[in-house]
Amino acid sequence: MSFNQPLGGNQMPRFGGIPTMMRLPEAKSAAGLDACFVGVPLDIGASNRSGTRMGPRSIRAESCLLRPFNLATGAAPFESLQVADIGDVAINTFNLPDAVRRIEEAYDVILENDVAPLTLGGDHTITYPILQSIAKKHGPVALIHIDAHADVGEHMFGEKIAHGTTFRRAYEDGLINPNLTFQIGLRGTGYSPDDFNWSRSKGFTVVTSDECQGVSLAPLMESIKAKIGDTKVYISFDIDGLDPSVAPGTGTPEIGGLTAYQGQQIIRGCKGLNVIGGDVVEISPPYDSTGNTSLLGANLLFEMLCVLPGVKYHNV
Amino acid sequence: MSFNQPLGGNQMPRFGGIPTMMRLPEAKSAAGLDACFVGVPLDIGASNRSGTRMGPRSIRAESCLLRPFNLATGAAPFESLQVADIGDVAINTFNLPDAVRRIEEAYDVILENDVAPLTLGGDHTITYPILQSIAKKHGPVALIHIDAHADVGEHMFGEKIAHGTTFRRAYEDGLINPNLTFQIGLRGTGYSPDDFNWSRSKGFTVVTSDECQGVSLAPLMESIKAKIGDTKVYISFDIDGLDPSVAPGTGTPEIGGLTAYQGQQIIRGCKGLNVIGGDVVEISPPYDSTGNTSLLGANLLFEMLCVLPGVKYHNV
Amino acid sequence: MSFNQPLGGNQMPRFGGIPTMMRLPEAKSAAGLDACFVGVPLDIGASNRSGTRMGPRSIRAESCLLRPFNLATGAAPFESLQVADIGDVAINTFNLPDAVRRIEEAYDVILENDVAPLTLGGDHTITYPILQSIAKKHGPVALIHIDAHADVGEHMFGEKIAHGTTFRRAYEDGLINPNLTFQIGLRGTGYSPDDFNWSRSKGFTVVTSDECQGVSLAPLMESIKAKIGDTKVYISFDIDGLDPSVAPGTGTPEIGGLTAYQGQQIIRGCKGLNVIGGDVVEISPPYDSTGNTSLLGANLLFEMLCVLPGVKYHNV
Amino acid sequence: MSFNQPLGGNQMPRFGGIPTMMRLPEAKSAAGLDACFVGVPLDIGASNRSGTRMGPRSIRAESCLLRPFNLATGAAPFESLQVADIGDVAINTFNLPDAVRRIEEAYDVILENDVAPLTLGGDHTITYPILQSIAKKHGPVALIHIDAHADVGEHMFGEKIAHGTTFRRAYEDGLINPNLTFQIGLRGTGYSPDDFNWSRSKGFTVVTSDECQGVSLAPLMESIKAKIGDTKVYISFDIDGLDPSVAPGTGTPEIGGLTAYQGQQIIRGCKGLNVIGGDVVEISPPYDSTGNTSLLGANLLFEMLCVLPGVKYHNV
Amino acid sequence: MSFNQPLGGNQMPRFGGIPTMMRLPEAKSAAGLDACFVGVPLDIGASNRSGTRMGPRSIRAESCLLRPFNLATGAAPFESLQVADIGDVAINTFNLPDAVRRIEEAYDVILENDVAPLTLGGDHTITYPILQSIAKKHGPVALIHIDAHADVGEHMFGEKIAHGTTFRRAYEDGLINPNLTFQIGLRGTGYSPDDFNWSRSKGFTVVTSDECQGVSLAPLMESIKAKIGDTKVYISFDIDGLDPSVAPGTGTPEIGGLTAYQGQQIIRGCKGLNVIGGDVVEISPPYDSTGNTSLLGANLLFEMLCVLPGVKYHNV
Amino acid sequence: MSFNQPLGGNQMPRFGGIPTMMRLPEAKSAAGLDACFVGVPLDIGASNRSGTRMGPRSIRAESCLLRPFNLATGAAPFESLQVADIGDVAINTFNLPDAVRRIEEAYDVILENDVAPLTLGGDHTITYPILQSIAKKHGPVALIHIDAHADVGEHMFGEKIAHGTTFRRAYEDGLINPNLTFQIGLRGTGYSPDDFNWSRSKGFTVVTSDECQGVSLAPLMESIKAKIGDTKVYISFDIDGLDPSVAPGTGTPEIGGLTAYQGQQIIRGCKGLNVIGGDVVEISPPYDSTGNTSLLGANLLFEMLCVLPGVKYHNV
Repeated sequence: MSFNQPLGGNQMPRFGGIPTMMRLPEAKSAAGLDACFVGVPLDIGASNRSGTRMGPRSIRAESCLLRPFNLATGAAPFESLQVADIGDVAINTFNLPDAVRRIEEAYDVILENDVAPLTLGGDHTITYPILQSIAKKHGPVALIHIDAHADVGEHMFGEKIAHGTTFRRAYEDGLINPNLTFQIGLRGTGYSPDDFNWSRSKGFTVVTSDECQGVSLAPLMESIKAKIGDTKVYISFDIDGLDPSVAPGTGTPEIGGLTAYQGQQIIRGCKGLNVIGGDVVEISPPYDSTGNTSLLGANLLFEMLCVLPGVKYHNV
Repeated sequence: MSFNQPLGGNQMPRFGGIPTMMRLPEAKSAAGLDACFVGVPLDIGASNRSGTRMGPRSIRAESCLLRPFNLATGAAPFESLQVADIGDVAINTFNLPDAVRRIEEAYDVILENDVAPLTLGGDHTITYPILQSIAKKHGPVALIHIDAHADVGEHMFGEKIAHGTTFRRAYEDGLINPNLTFQIGLRGTGYSPDDFNWSRSKGFTVVTSDECQGVSLAPLMESIKAKIGDTKVYISFDIDGLDPSVAPGTGTPEIGGLTAYQGQQIIRGCKGLNVIGGDVVEISPPYDSTGNTSLLGANLLFEMLCVLPGVKYHNV
Repeated sequence: MSFNQPLGGNQMPRFGGIPTMMRLPEAKSAAGLDACFVGVPLDIGASNRSGTRMGPRSIRAESCLLRPFNLATGAAPFESLQVADIGDVAINTFNLPDAVRRIEEAYDVILENDVAPLTLGGDHTITYPILQSIAKKHGPVALIHIDAHADVGEHMFGEKIAHGTTFRRAYEDGLINPNLTFQIGLRGTGYSPDDFNWSRSKGFTVVTSDECQGVSLAPLMESIKAKIGDTKVYISFDIDGLDPSVAPGTGTPEIGGLTAYQGQQIIRGCKGLNVIGGDVVEISPPYDSTGNTSLLGANLLFEMLCVLPGVKYHNV
Repeated sequence: MSFNQPLGGNQMPRFGGIPTMMRLPEAKSAAGLDACFVGVPLDIGASNRSGTRMGPRSIRAESCLLRPFNLATGAAPFESLQVADIGDVAINTFNLPDAVRRIEEAYDVILENDVAPLTLGGDHTITYPILQSIAKKHGPVALIHIDAHADVGEHMFGEKIAHGTTFRRAYEDGLINPNLTFQIGLRGTGYSPDDFNWSRSKGFTVVTSDECQGVSLAPLMESIKAKIGDTKVYISFDIDGLDPSVAPGTGTPEIGGLTAYQGQQIIRGCKGLNVIGGDVVEISPPYDSTGNTSLLGANLLFEMLCVLPGVKYHNV
Repeated sequence: MSFNQPLGGNQMPRFGGIPTMMRLPEAKSAAGLDACFVGVPLDIGASNRSGTRMGPRSIRAESCLLRPFNLATGAAPFESLQVADIGDVAINTFNLPDAVRRIEEAYDVILENDVAPLTLGGDHTITYPILQSIAKKHGPVALIHIDAHADVGEHMFGEKIAHGTTFRRAYEDGLINPNLTFQIGLRGTGYSPDDFNWSRSKGFTVVTSDECQGVSLAPLMESIKAKIGDTKVYISFDIDGLDPSVAPGTGTPEIGGLTAYQGQQIIRGCKGLNVIGGDVVEISPPYDSTGNTSLLGANLLFEMLCVLPGVKYHNV
Repeated sequence: MSFNQPLGGNQMPRFGGIPTMMRLPEAKSAAGLDACFVGVPLDIGASNRSGTRMGPRSIRAESCLLRPFNLATGAAPFESLQVADIGDVAINTFNLPDAVRRIEEAYDVILENDVAPLTLGGDHTITYPILQSIAKKHGPVALIHIDAHADVGEHMFGEKIAHGTTFRRAYEDGLINPNLTFQIGLRGTGYSPDDFNWSRSKGFTVVTSDECQGVSLAPLMESIKAKIGDTKVYISFDIDGLDPSVAPGTGTPEIGGLTAYQGQQIIRGCKGLNVIGGDVVEISPPYDSTGNTSLLGANLLFEMLCVLPGVKYHNV
């Protein structure tokens, strides 16, 4: 079998061609794929700045700089996995509940295949319907959640579904294993001292950004891996988990976040886990004049691809 | 009686102070006002770029440059009208139907007073609930509608309410007098040759942007005024009616539009009409790096204020 | 036969999906097409600001706002023509002569089909190899050239091929009919009083921007059409022919240019001519913070599509 | 007594409403307040880039994202302090000495109340008249000064008062206790090897940015606290003390600065001190395209509020 | 004698080299020059947005695109005039009266030579000291003043000297001939109906922007020329006289202004007058993300150079 | 002998004057200089984003903030070295091989003098011809190379010379001593696991960015210095060696890079080495909206100046 390869810079300049994710072939469905990139261009679940609707398009455009091999880890995902870009979910941008329904249905169709979906968001609302679909196939999953915010609100402006309630809904619906849910990077201001305690009270592990300052996250990931063991894992990476200096183009930035390298450490630390999918969310291109936040997101999605089961590794 | 005055540049530098519209006093309600500025920070009705949720804040910030007297027309609105900024409608940014309901209710409360609301949008969806409320008080109104788009879609992505269906809904609900509805500046690409014909078939007058190129719009406005006579009039000004060179910061720009001066001509041409309210919509600050589109919107709202009945005029 | 249709906004939000031109299907070749959109991401022929290498990608992204029907002219190109996006030419970004060779070869392959190529540039150098290929198939063509600059330099920095020498080379090679070459919008500063006179001395018609100020260009186009008659015509539209207020995102802007509407008038005025191809060049996205210059370019390319022979027109 | 509360995101979307600091009520004076936010929109004391005149407006706009509770420290300032936004000082933007006089007078009026002023700058010149007023009420204060520059110039371009002379003037006037003056983050290029030695020669403690690289600042703050004891303390936070990656929107950036988290550590390390006021200065919005530098400033001002005496703390 | 020539694009790429105005030689003084470009980087006289301090640097940088010959008019200024860039006046950025004094003194030194100074502003305050110096040498001059604002305030915030009082001061000091003072482009909002009437009452001719809409300004200039006759003329061009679409990068934009071409018409219409100097002011680069406003300013300064007495003209 | 001094901020405001590097005098040649700043405005060797052609101009503009003394190290380069800005190399922007030839020739002329050239790039292609010239004078040099990429490609798109092949060519030509070649900051994605191994196989020392995370680079530099000893050293600093948060304005950004302070540590760690030249490359101003990446580059060039042999140091 031959695997899809990203279009190389010696075949077409990196700024040329129609920008699929990593310049991989576009596929009409996930059939036959081991992993797929899929976009969910939603921003109507966002409470502060909008613009994440432009996220998938911008991540794809910037991803054209990526080459196929991970020089830090030796991962060569395109030597052993069949990967393609399957385009975007046709969300209803005027109706959040209907958008959420459409996302769930789209992932149900994707997951008829044995494929790991790697999602280009979109605001964080999208992780709820993705997890609904994931849980139907895989049961409750372990969750590695990088974010400035816990996203466990009871409601936002009276609504049950929005980008700040995702993980409370996921918990209530039994989509995630609370004892194997790890929230990394939390910080900032809140409505009460209990904002993070709700997570803790349900069994989640909260690792605040303050705890991460100036330290390697490799030991943390080792301990998380030991706890998760063979349980299937989903990675949800809100770009605002990283510091605004690293990820300026986002809607609810919080100062004092993680470095990009720490973000890489978290994902790389998942190597060996049974990762069944992941997302990068909350990139808002109108607030990213250089495109660098989108490029960061593209890199993080590539790092997720590199830790999927079955990826071939070389020595580096 | 003494009238509210904008805070002057010799009292506080124009870049100083808390930015209400034109640096007028903030009022908790419209009681006692002849005209009020009110913001509706909605963008979830927009189909292409988002960002109009930031419109009211940005229009207010840029409006701080405005001085109280209209040097082109002689209007001195603050010599005879009581005007204030009554803040924003608390829209539900996660739920478009609920947002629309909230807008209508908010305007119902405003219109318990004999006040002309001048609205800082927000995407064009907002004009529908505003007109619902207006019609309850005033009956069906004549409409002067400046826009690149007719906004008379049957639905968008299956939804009845969105920024592209506003005037079909208003027509169906009898909120506007179709024979006194004037759509100025229409142009661009569409789904069928009938995009503008629906308007015509209902009695609307369509004045395309092409018809406006290179000509004074004063004669057009004279003819419109003659038709409208004493009928109450609402002015809805979508900033994309103007050319993108003039109004770059908007979500669905169409090339080949009106000049800013033509926009002024249209509003100034309403002098003498019984204008009972108006709005400026579709300003998207993330796409307006200088703030100049917001400043344009602020100016157009001031021009609307200047043509309200009862404004005192000086010779210039 | 069924014709390719742009993906509609009610199927996928305009900001969603992989951005081909107008969200048309991507085709691997021009076989079976009546018209094709093709990108040439070159900027190493540019003498001042760079960035046009990003032009095709950005034009495609912004083109997603376009709907299939021309409301000004009644043109419905997708009712009678088969159109697709065939991607980009793999130019060599490190070697201008080799890039030019590759462009010519790519167009030779395209023109093995009876297809009208509509090109997304790229700096203006690209029109030279395109015309080389065009002339092989069609013989010398009439040329409608909108630009601030005549681009008839003998050389630039000693090089024969660059974005300022295109039409001298085309003349010398007999690719264009000089008596049917019309350069519209010329202006600015130059190296000598003869900068435009070279064009005139060869039989070109020069219409300066100054001559166009404040007038309709419809009469001009009528006269040009009368002269061209049945001769095959190529349209080369340098975006800097338009005023920098309209097209800020370009590399060698010149003040005092045409309006966007005049640009539309020129292309619309070609209806009835035997147009066999066209291009829009010199859009530099790094200098176009809103994307509006790219959107302008997308619109102009759509207008070119609308005047190709065989397009069905409706009454509007 | 009931305390003013920031307008919550479930009452009004964060992008809605008139932007006071943290969406607190506006007060006409500081009477009855324990702490007040006050803006000083000055930039004519700046020697390189201008734009800090827009600082207060932009800090307020971005502060709308802040929630009332400090999740890192447990501080709940709005449970025990009465806080409001009292607007801006009407500086004279054409006359620096007169602006300085007006600032001092304005703070004299503010300090007729037992209130801690937290100031939104403005360039660093403003700290001199603020300290003049502070010293009249409180006597010489301890100073915690975060900055890339010592701001102890004898003059700038012959002027005694400008943003680079603030702390020499404050020393000369006896406004600060030199032995309890701590300058943190100093770095960059200078006019002589003595640029920082003047500070040292007067008893100031200089902590260069180089000394801070890669280390926690908690121990530093413990040692500073031990020295200051019960002495009243003023915090002056020049945003350029932080690295330009963190705070790009400023006028005299210096590479190699502190992280945002270190900035938080410094302020949080003041808990238990008798803090009587503070400022955040040198944010220049024209150089802050995302607004994130202003948001950073808003967060730092909130952190200052959280370490005022009398703030209630919860366990976190 | 050989005349200085701008460095050509075939000697050094336009983006290369140290950016003097038009890439002319730098001169240490105006000795031996017929015309000189000189910068005055002032912005502390500006009442709204700042940033004009960056004007001269940015105008120079963008001017590198200019070539030596005026293709519209045939002017070849470098064939008959000795021109150089003499750098900037060392203004005191902390003290407006001292800055004004320094400007006047610098121009006194310049005008010891028979040279026409063409000034790169800077806010409009600078024209007052320039005119003070001009009048000492030339006596009261005729004035062609393009602007949105009359700049005839009695004071601003109590100050006699600021960018809004320039021409009242110039009138009071007898620096200009009021009957030969022409203010073109005035518009916008004001403090009273008399804002423009003060000008009229003194004999100035006011040509509002409204009067200029859609018409050629050539007849206006003919009539102005007839009035001025042989009187020495100074041209002061505030970039905000032009429409914000054309000149977005400015501090007090007013909608509904002139086109760039009309700006060119005004200056070109001065051909034959005894022009003894001119300036372009109020370009604020922080609000000009493309550099195009600065490029516009550079072009207008070149047009002024082209109408100086003694310039050689070719047929075009 | 008196040494050239940068123009001080008390002689001319930092935003004033014609922007040479550090506002040093411009020199027509390197004769008599100990060190010179020279620009090479090339971007046609870049494979992803363009724009580095604007690098020298922008670095110079931002360098105007720099003062003459290094407060961190005590270096006072202008007390013992004669330094000037000798302008830009007239590269051929249409022809990469010819541009490279011109660069080599220009440096040959420069190096007829005993001068250390400090180069303002330009894309990284330029280091190849610079090293060609350097090696002619100095023989093979030790190389300290900071970069995200090894730049040791065999070819790019078939071309031997481009910004990704520089150090393979330099190795092949014997311009550098491979055993004294240190590549610091390497990271990212690549074409094969051997991307960095080629370097290692030739004797280069590769220090990946991952190895640098969270540690001081002082020990690394001590070990490098011990190895290099007296060998002549060239420093080539690709700005993308630093993290994109620190250096957003570049063409091929890679996440997870060095801090600015680490960049300073590397250069400062060269004190005592026999540094004979250096460059800062790959700054792309169109992607640097604040100018801060250019300012960073200016600072790094100043740090290089400070470690040249013969610089006088003060105690700090």
